[in-house]
Amino acid sequence: MAELTHFNNQNRAKMVDVTNKSITSRFAIATGKIKMQHETILRIQEGKIKKGDVLAVAQVAGIMAAKQTSQLIPMCHLIPLTGVDIHFEDDNSTTITVTTKVKTKHVTGVEIEALLAAQTSLLTIYDMCKAIDRGMIITDVHLVEKDGGKSGHFKFD
Amino acid sequence: MAELTHFNNQNRAKMVDVTNKSITSRFAIATGKIKMQHETILRIQEGKIKKGDVLAVAQVAGIMAAKQTSQLIPMCHLIPLTGVDIHFEDDNSTTITVTTKVKTKHVTGVEIEALLAAQTSLLTIYDMCKAIDRGMIITDVHLVEKDGGKSGHFKFD
Amino acid sequence: MAELTHFNNQNRAKMVDVTNKSITSRFAIATGKIKMQHETILRIQEGKIKKGDVLAVAQVAGIMAAKQTSQLIPMCHLIPLTGVDIHFEDDNSTTITVTTKVKTKHVTGVEIEALLAAQTSLLTIYDMCKAIDRGMIITDVHLVEKDGGKSGHFKFD
Amino acid sequence: MAELTHFNNQNRAKMVDVTNKSITSRFAIATGKIKMQHETILRIQEGKIKKGDVLAVAQVAGIMAAKQTSQLIPMCHLIPLTGVDIHFEDDNSTTITVTTKVKTKHVTGVEIEALLAAQTSLLTIYDMCKAIDRGMIITDVHLVEKDGGKSGHFKFD
Amino acid sequence: MAELTHFNNQNRAKMVDVTNKSITSRFAIATGKIKMQHETILRIQEGKIKKGDVLAVAQVAGIMAAKQTSQLIPMCHLIPLTGVDIHFEDDNSTTITVTTKVKTKHVTGVEIEALLAAQTSLLTIYDMCKAIDRGMIITDVHLVEKDGGKSGHFKFD
Amino acid sequence: MAELTHFNNQNRAKMVDVTNKSITSRFAIATGKIKMQHETILRIQEGKIKKGDVLAVAQVAGIMAAKQTSQLIPMCHLIPLTGVDIHFEDDNSTTITVTTKVKTKHVTGVEIEALLAAQTSLLTIYDMCKAIDRGMIITDVHLVEKDGGKSGHFKFD
Repeated sequence: MAELTHFNNQNRAKMVDVTNKSITSRFAIATGKIKMQHETILRIQEGKIKKGDVLAVAQVAGIMAAKQTSQLIPMCHLIPLTGVDIHFEDDNSTTITVTTKVKTKHVTGVEIEALLAAQTSLLTIYDMCKAIDRGMIITDVHLVEKDGGKSGHFKFD
Repeated sequence: MAELTHFNNQNRAKMVDVTNKSITSRFAIATGKIKMQHETILRIQEGKIKKGDVLAVAQVAGIMAAKQTSQLIPMCHLIPLTGVDIHFEDDNSTTITVTTKVKTKHVTGVEIEALLAAQTSLLTIYDMCKAIDRGMIITDVHLVEKDGGKSGHFKFD
Repeated sequence: MAELTHFNNQNRAKMVDVTNKSITSRFAIATGKIKMQHETILRIQEGKIKKGDVLAVAQVAGIMAAKQTSQLIPMCHLIPLTGVDIHFEDDNSTTITVTTKVKTKHVTGVEIEALLAAQTSLLTIYDMCKAIDRGMIITDVHLVEKDGGKSGHFKFD
Repeated sequence: MAELTHFNNQNRAKMVDVTNKSITSRFAIATGKIKMQHETILRIQEGKIKKGDVLAVAQVAGIMAAKQTSQLIPMCHLIPLTGVDIHFEDDNSTTITVTTKVKTKHVTGVEIEALLAAQTSLLTIYDMCKAIDRGMIITDVHLVEKDGGKSGHFKFD
Repeated sequence: MAELTHFNNQNRAKMVDVTNKSITSRFAIATGKIKMQHETILRIQEGKIKKGDVLAVAQVAGIMAAKQTSQLIPMCHLIPLTGVDIHFEDDNSTTITVTTKVKTKHVTGVEIEALLAAQTSLLTIYDMCKAIDRGMIITDVHLVEKDGGKSGHFKFD
Repeated sequence: MAELTHFNNQNRAKMVDVTNKSITSRFAIATGKIKMQHETILRIQEGKIKKGDVLAVAQVAGIMAAKQTSQLIPMCHLIPLTGVDIHFEDDNSTTITVTTKVKTKHVTGVEIEALLAAQTSLLTIYDMCKAIDRGMIITDVHLVEKDGGKSGHFKFD
């Protein structure tokens, strides 16, 4: 197994040097779920029909968070993103799944951006529904797929 | 079941009006886990002994994220936090658990701050170890307990 | 007419000292308009019925901007806002009007927060429709009303 | 008329995918006005001679805002700007006009950056003079000209 | 000598708990110097008379930095500042001294805010003059005086 | 001696136009010191052995600050950094020296990023130790070396 790359010769954290890596097209897809009471998901679904749309706010939050990744995750490089998209699905009567796709043309990948977008979308759902359901659980947040760069293609299984 | 509180009479999102709520001492405790390969957790544990300390970076990231909550979660109020602390435990050979505690003396609670601190700490671990393990899963992120304010005490069960 | 208050004895800008001002309930209401082609407003209106909702994004942008006022406007104090709400109206076939209301309980007012929320909502509309209409004009942005604090009530006329 | 480009197949907002667009030199020029009492503009003009210079602060605010565009306007791409300049003119006895010019060499344009710089400069003038004139109006904010990229040259008329 | 207060029982950093500290009026005064070539200081002094004013930009930068302290210094509490002022003096033919004063009415002090304002003002001078003098030195940055809170009055000597 | 480059024809500050400068590999190395009581440095050194590690937090703070340079220093361009590393040394019984190295492949240099990382690391040490030593002095902050770009190589002497 390879070594952790984020430490210097004083054994303290550094931002990994990517100066000489090639610019390539890259994308990352991440996912995550939020589990809630059946009543809560009904409220969210109603919102899409006639009341305020929780997921529209969660969508905006996720996209904006992707752009702030390098300010939240200490060793992340700032990456000018070229595309961010987010989808929600009601898997069943108690779970909403988010899927995020982030793209760039840069020297390093956007896995963390995709994961942060997923986490932030889910936490926004929590925030907007917490008055009726404080016990919601954010779970199964992971990378689904990524491509581009030296490490190549990855698919979660 | 109560109504969602974050929508106005045009059915669009608003920041809930808390002008007339009382200032009280409040805290929130949140938790979350990251699952990884056994090899990965060994690398992190070694770091605490002789190499760079992944969890020290995750700790700082979580604390700083708590302070940025209102910039990431659209309908969150900015809250001057009076304390943030974070603990990590190696539950077993493949999981690290984070527990965050956030405190304030303010008109609204800090549940989202505690949850965001947990999420960000876990994502920082992912970021710093992703070169050796891209399949890590962030999971079981939820509120553990909160107290203070009109809605009173909550304990997850 | 009173003097400008934002300058020190070296004739350079300062953040005005409000240490000894009283905490009172305050609000500010601001407004602004964006003028566009009739075709453009039709696209936005369609969005509210069956396609993506431009105004839902503008709403979130305005609320989040209000919270960032002190980072954009150099001499503004950071103010923990206690409520932000935004409404849109289609005045006629070529204009959308935004009205923002911001509240706080603090030592200084929230006029700038309300105005920035209005400006940012309108600019978000511009951004999301610019592919079809680059000639849109943001106009008539002003304070409508404010109350609270030593300077008391103000109403635009 | 073309379709709005910022929506995905769930009819929610996305950041438009510009991964495959070409890097070209681009600029955008925007303008806007603030109308005030004659007394207020006299105070600002005096400041340029012997007291604090309101417009120097507004200048800095506009330039810094241009760099924060992607954090305020939800669907904007982060763009490394290569130049920002701002000019003010006293059109007449009650109006100050700002003109902003923003440049980049990137895959997408800087219209929003130029408009945000204009808006923020004008709001900073409002902020610094509001103690003497709360009725000021920010108006006629629009794109003047832009060039570069697939959509080519645009001139407001 | 007292213990360092910023560590928890896992020996990792925490934000110190100030929930039960009293709100009092507080201020902090900090200072710092930048040493440069005589030619450089002449250019800056000319600017105050007939060209662009480096110190006006440094002033704005210092004030805005004070407001961002909690986002830069990991264990700092966010503090709503009630006043920030900055003065510059040309000590002699090669040195500019900055003095910053920051005020608040809060549960914890503003020493770091005053120091960060001083550092940022000085670095802004460096940035704006670096094309003509890369060897400038920022030096003697320290707290001058602070008052308020449990630890009381401090004066540097 | 050359002219200051950051002013426009209205003698106000601008962000210098670098649109037509070449992309080259660049680095900057900066340094700075913090002087403290002998007791204070002992506390920090103990921390590296058995208690919380002040310098680990200062390291993270410095790296994150480098990424925020364009938001703090008004006329700085946003630069996607490709590497940041920081080292600390205990020069003697009362001084800690920080050395920062920042890299990029961009149209303009990273001197300010390296200097800001140094300043922020040192201020974080101050913050975490101020409870035991308020009289610490941050001093001798300067550029050590830089390379890349039209102005070529610089070495402090």
